Amino acid sequence: MSLTDVTVPTDIALNTDLYELTMAQGFFEAGLMDNEACFNVFFRDNPFDGGYAVACGTGQIADLVENFVFTDDACDYLAGLRAPGGGSLFTPAFIDYLRGFRARLDISAVPEGMPVFPREPLVRVIGPLVDCQLVETALLNLVNFQTLVATKTARVIRSAQGHPVSDFGLRRAQGPDGGLAVARASYIAGAASTSNCLAGKIYNIPVFGTHAHSWVMAFPSELDAFRAFAKSSPKNCCLLVDTYDVRQGVENAIIVGHEMEAAGERLAAIRIDSGDLAKLSKMSRQMLDEAGLDYVKITASNDLDEYTIQSLYAQGAPVDSFGVGTKLATCDPQPSLGGVYKLSASRATSEEAWTPAMKLSEMAYKRTIPGIQRVVRFLDESGSPIGDQIVDDSYDTGSAKAVDVTDPMVTYDFSGHKSIELLQPVVEDGHAVGEPEPIEVARKRCHDSLMVMDPAYLRFLNPQAYPVGLEPGLAAVRERLARHERVQR
Amino acid sequence: MSLTDVTVPTDIALNTDLYELTMAQGFFEAGLMDNEACFNVFFRDNPFDGGYAVACGTGQIADLVENFVFTDDACDYLAGLRAPGGGSLFTPAFIDYLRGFRARLDISAVPEGMPVFPREPLVRVIGPLVDCQLVETALLNLVNFQTLVATKTARVIRSAQGHPVSDFGLRRAQGPDGGLAVARASYIAGAASTSNCLAGKIYNIPVFGTHAHSWVMAFPSELDAFRAFAKSSPKNCCLLVDTYDVRQGVENAIIVGHEMEAAGERLAAIRIDSGDLAKLSKMSRQMLDEAGLDYVKITASNDLDEYTIQSLYAQGAPVDSFGVGTKLATCDPQPSLGGVYKLSASRATSEEAWTPAMKLSEMAYKRTIPGIQRVVRFLDESGSPIGDQIVDDSYDTGSAKAVDVTDPMVTYDFSGHKSIELLQPVVEDGHAVGEPEPIEVARKRCHDSLMVMDPAYLRFLNPQAYPVGLEPGLAAVRERLARHERVQR
Repeated sequence: MSLTDVTVPTDIALNTDLYELTMAQGFFEAGLMDNEACFNVFFRDNPFDGGYAVACGTGQIADLVENFVFTDDACDYLAGLRAPGGGSLFTPAFIDYLRGFRARLDISAVPEGMPVFPREPLVRVIGPLVDCQLVETALLNLVNFQTLVATKTARVIRSAQGHPVSDFGLRRAQGPDGGLAVARASYIAGAASTSNCLAGKIYNIPVFGTHAHSWVMAFPSELDAFRAFAKSSPKNCCLLVDTYDVRQGVENAIIVGHEMEAAGERLAAIRIDSGDLAKLSKMSRQMLDEAGLDYVKITASNDLDEYTIQSLYAQGAPVDSFGVGTKLATCDPQPSLGGVYKLSASRATSEEAWTPAMKLSEMAYKRTIPGIQRVVRFLDESGSPIGDQIVDDSYDTGSAKAVDVTDPMVTYDFSGHKSIELLQPVVEDGHAVGEPEPIEVARKRCHDSLMVMDPAYLRFLNPQAYPVGLEPGLAAVRERLARHERVQR
Repeated sequence: MSLTDVTVPTDIALNTDLYELTMAQGFFEAGLMDNEACFNVFFRDNPFDGGYAVACGTGQIADLVENFVFTDDACDYLAGLRAPGGGSLFTPAFIDYLRGFRARLDISAVPEGMPVFPREPLVRVIGPLVDCQLVETALLNLVNFQTLVATKTARVIRSAQGHPVSDFGLRRAQGPDGGLAVARASYIAGAASTSNCLAGKIYNIPVFGTHAHSWVMAFPSELDAFRAFAKSSPKNCCLLVDTYDVRQGVENAIIVGHEMEAAGERLAAIRIDSGDLAKLSKMSRQMLDEAGLDYVKITASNDLDEYTIQSLYAQGAPVDSFGVGTKLATCDPQPSLGGVYKLSASRATSEEAWTPAMKLSEMAYKRTIPGIQRVVRFLDESGSPIGDQIVDDSYDTGSAKAVDVTDPMVTYDFSGHKSIELLQPVVEDGHAVGEPEPIEVARKRCHDSLMVMDPAYLRFLNPQAYPVGLEPGLAAVRERLARHERVQR
């Protein structure tokens, strides 16, 4: 075992729960290789008690599917697995099948950066049942966390009222990939930069960073430390002022700021990383201004999230930018989106019509939506979304009405409004559709989409529920499937 | 950008916060390359309101340090970065220095699987200040999350009272690496298996899995689906009984169980993944027993954690094993350990004596421990730990007494007890000490160590605080450093 043995890219197909493989072998042996299925990725509740989520990770699906191969190494590993009851877990015939496997799937997904809502498909996967099953775990692993981080970041960005936010979360992330996912998703959702150099290199995200308390402690005095840093980083000089005492730290920063002015440079900022950030930022601003250094920015860090930042501004704290780490990278206080992957339709061969599928045992909360779904988003005249309608073309009545996705007593009428299609093709027959989208495009989409959203859906406290409904034809099918007698014993 | 571009192993040195590099350049330019430092990784509070944590990730430190090189690719990336104020962020001379960089560090760490407590060093890093700084982020990224997951798992294992627990968390983890870290750390902390095939392959962990609801829904009837699965996986047959109705599901499982008996096979288990697990497991157990299938096990899953499992057993639920996913992989409800990396001593050259270092601005809660620390764990006659003593050899008074690490009014006396050293060398001058430890050894250490712990430290509700204190000589140094006048303005 070695970190350098962690060859995730080449073994991405093994990044799966074992049961996908035992099921695939079952389908293989039951001769169900022609069976086709439609699965949807969706979540049941907005994270963080919020009113929306931001789709993310979907831009990497094509890459995942195109690279989803079982290497010889992976096949050898699987061939060596033993069943608990004895014998090999997998047959040689099935291992041979895996060796030649390529996922023959058609996949549509909500573009990255788009606001999305509970129960509507974020990703729709259509193809051979086995293929759908084999990619499940890797797909969820890709989309679940990035959507969660993008959502968390969008909230933090909103609280920061236009001031830059940098992702500082790498040290608390789940390994290098966790850190990469945090940096990528948070940049799409509006972060200005990341502290993570690997993410900067791979995704071409701006990187940001200053110095730590240990820098100050490595010099005989704070002033020496500040002078050395200004000398080394004159174009990027942000001084951390809270190693010993913030007032003393700002006084030293002012001395260095004046020295930099004399040398034709400018102190860029000071950073406060502990204590009462509201009180200390006000004191620092006043000291800097009185010293003629009104251009020096104040950046804050230390256990920040959207609520703390909101509170800082409510107190009038003159903070110009933020470094947000732990609570962003771990999506505190809700570290999982709970995105699921559910069968919504099946057919015995590609010649047949689709049969809508629904897990019957569940009560309303866990009830799924059957059929081959697409999502229509209706917009008002200013382009602001007013509601989403889930449609199955097979049952489309052509109505712009919709039955609420959780409460069948509530209906919506979107008549007369223009609309857009949410799900866009990303994979056709296992191949990427078009070129990969630059990350900046997704970032702009997120910014522009949230700008036009009604703030009632975006606020943190008791946000209004965004309307999501089923087109009447689909609603009727769902109701027919859901109505069955529950035998009570 | 492509998933296959994510070559984490070769670019592990870039898995860092930018400020480590801007500081390193500062030290380089300030001519402080001979300065030496001692940093410690520690956490301030036990996670999950518990009484302990389980060290994990430390077994991979040597691997990290030996592979910590800046590739040409990484150097080219860094050389191209621009400072916000204009010009290159890094000088050609510094980039050249990085090209030849090898971390010349001596690192000691608590072996994986050992119980550890707040404020004592989990990892101690000694060497050139620059080298210490450059590995900080990658080291925290490695140790923080695995220690958190190992701790969470140890709690879940304890609640399961000896019944097997399998890690099912991959789909909610932070990318492939997150999933790998979860599987590795949870296995060390006592999980019996993982659903994650990649982790199985890389770390040689047993893999486990059955089938999903979609398997059942892919067949004309549940009975057909169960029969097909039994045929395909006769030695590994666990049937998921809650797709439509659990009672009906168990009845169908019983039919298939009897058919397997007739064919000389045995149904291994049924799995319940929704509903009231206590009520449904009791009903299922009774049905299976009455059908003569008392050997068929019951496994449960669905949003489990240590509290739910504890409650299930308190209700007498006859569950034989558990699949624990989301709350394990995300360490809900506390997704970060908060492990930090703090300077504790420095010297201008390796010829000088160490100067103990402490960040002064902090009040008691954030006050660090100065010096070159080692940790002595005292054991009672049965081998059960009774308290830890942090010692600095430079100030060692030879006393077995200790001053509590947070409350200086409390002292401990460990006189007359045998002891062990907690920190063990893992890296010397940048090279691994000895062979990598097999993961099974760490797993056994965790099991054996927790077995002998006083349950008062292990309980979930209001656990007793485990004594951690400073040897009197070190306590005197800390007190001297901490006593300074705080100027109030």
